[in-house]
Amino acid sequence: VSFDRAKLLFKTSIVVRNYEVDWQGIVHNATYLLYCEIGRIEYLRRMGVLIDPAAIRKESLIVVARNEIDYLRPVGFGEELMVLSRIASIGESSFRFESMIETAQGGDRVAENTAVHVWLDQLNGRPTAVPDWFRENVRKWEGKNVSILGGKP
Amino acid sequence: VSFDRAKLLFKTSIVVRNYEVDWQGIVHNATYLLYCEIGRIEYLRRMGVLIDPAAIRKESLIVVARNEIDYLRPVGFGEELMVLSRIASIGESSFRFESMIETAQGGDRVAENTAVHVWLDQLNGRPTAVPDWFRENVRKWEGKNVSILGGKP
Amino acid sequence: VSFDRAKLLFKTSIVVRNYEVDWQGIVHNATYLLYCEIGRIEYLRRMGVLIDPAAIRKESLIVVARNEIDYLRPVGFGEELMVLSRIASIGESSFRFESMIETAQGGDRVAENTAVHVWLDQLNGRPTAVPDWFRENVRKWEGKNVSILGGKP
Amino acid sequence: VSFDRAKLLFKTSIVVRNYEVDWQGIVHNATYLLYCEIGRIEYLRRMGVLIDPAAIRKESLIVVARNEIDYLRPVGFGEELMVLSRIASIGESSFRFESMIETAQGGDRVAENTAVHVWLDQLNGRPTAVPDWFRENVRKWEGKNVSILGGKP
Repeated sequence: VSFDRAKLLFKTSIVVRNYEVDWQGIVHNATYLLYCEIGRIEYLRRMGVLIDPAAIRKESLIVVARNEIDYLRPVGFGEELMVLSRIASIGESSFRFESMIETAQGGDRVAENTAVHVWLDQLNGRPTAVPDWFRENVRKWEGKNVSILGGKP
Repeated sequence: VSFDRAKLLFKTSIVVRNYEVDWQGIVHNATYLLYCEIGRIEYLRRMGVLIDPAAIRKESLIVVARNEIDYLRPVGFGEELMVLSRIASIGESSFRFESMIETAQGGDRVAENTAVHVWLDQLNGRPTAVPDWFRENVRKWEGKNVSILGGKP
Repeated sequence: VSFDRAKLLFKTSIVVRNYEVDWQGIVHNATYLLYCEIGRIEYLRRMGVLIDPAAIRKESLIVVARNEIDYLRPVGFGEELMVLSRIASIGESSFRFESMIETAQGGDRVAENTAVHVWLDQLNGRPTAVPDWFRENVRKWEGKNVSILGGKP
Repeated sequence: VSFDRAKLLFKTSIVVRNYEVDWQGIVHNATYLLYCEIGRIEYLRRMGVLIDPAAIRKESLIVVARNEIDYLRPVGFGEELMVLSRIASIGESSFRFESMIETAQGGDRVAENTAVHVWLDQLNGRPTAVPDWFRENVRKWEGKNVSILGGKP
């Protein structure tokens, strides 16, 4: 993974909690994915996409199809982190989030994550087109930073 | 990711627990990494590598440097899964685990994970050579399935 | 809490997973509640109560109103545990589960938990009568060990 | 449990994260214990007690011996909560934390937790006297709100 740091404009702040530290004394590798998800959820909420259990059940089912994550630096209890998030591209039925975790002080790079999401049809569970309202929201929010394939001409 | 299923010989059985199911009604994406880790830990234990908090602190510090995971099928509460695990290769200071998750009934492919681990020096926290005793253990356990770089000639 | 061990007939087996061990090298205190819940869910499933996300949403909403837990012994990675579970009493709109965790080898007492559950009306979210089919199921399953208040005469 | 709200002076702010919401669409019951723990850890840190893996391993081993928690109101994704914490009493080898969770807006009571902690000897794992430096720290921090038994006269 190699991210363009300058395009990651959205930031969410996180402080490492004690129970996220494992028996090695550092944050567990699966927990980094939770941190990236916190950033993505906050990004979507600020962009105006309603995220709640009812919305998830009725209107859309978005699932993670692939995660790639590089761990660049261990982090410990109480450390302040910054999660940077952006939607980097949208395809026919999928979109790709990039997340970067840094230390809040000093900006040391902690992890880089790419998460591919797929939009599923609620009835048959198969991939379906990313709806136009979502494409438009992202286009307005990210401007020309995002690469968007398809949608209304 | 594209795995050679025939080389994944070690199996660990898992049943999905209720609290692993998220608000979408399916197992959360970060939890798949925990399932793969359960498989890896069991693999190492059976191979004869002592895994406990004291051993981790004193003798070795192994960290995950990279995770790649493809989610191929959602799973729900109570489903029986099989986690297949193997060490696919060992480098100078790292080794790579492959994990495949399948449904226990039917063998539907659920997820494929590659996890790169790095061996750290306890004192300075820098990558250090994978010790020979570990290389030998894996060589005996995996036979010619594993690709081993370096170590004693 | 002081339980009658002889009345706890239902058993569920659990092995401590590595990520359940915290930075103190022992299983985290909140995780004991998850272990007790695994036992309760398995108890209900075997008794014939359908547990799945759809059933939870449509037919019934059962919430935990109170937990009491005494921690009697720390447990570490890889330890085999036995969770003993029973419904000890049913009231108008609530029922009480007792759980005991023991080591599988030796039967050392690890923890004792009482969990009070309340049956809620799906529409207004207020406590509602425990349905008769549930009372009957428990009566058949527990026999005279369970104290049942109310329901059909 | 029945707490004196006026004595709970220390506050920690928390926002419900998406992965803390379970398949019922509300925060899972075990997660409330994590919220209370976040409050306790922050309380201790502000009071001047060093909390980190090294300190835990070398100087002291404090374990939770009992948790009591009443769940008064479900909470959902994105809700802002306030955790109120205090050490209510110190005995020979134990101390008792009280925690109250409220909604940040409106102050609705969400949960009340009592957690009894025991100080263990690092060598033999048996209960040992709460050290004087800890008693003094709490006495200064809580003033006459805390009931302290024993220690230096």
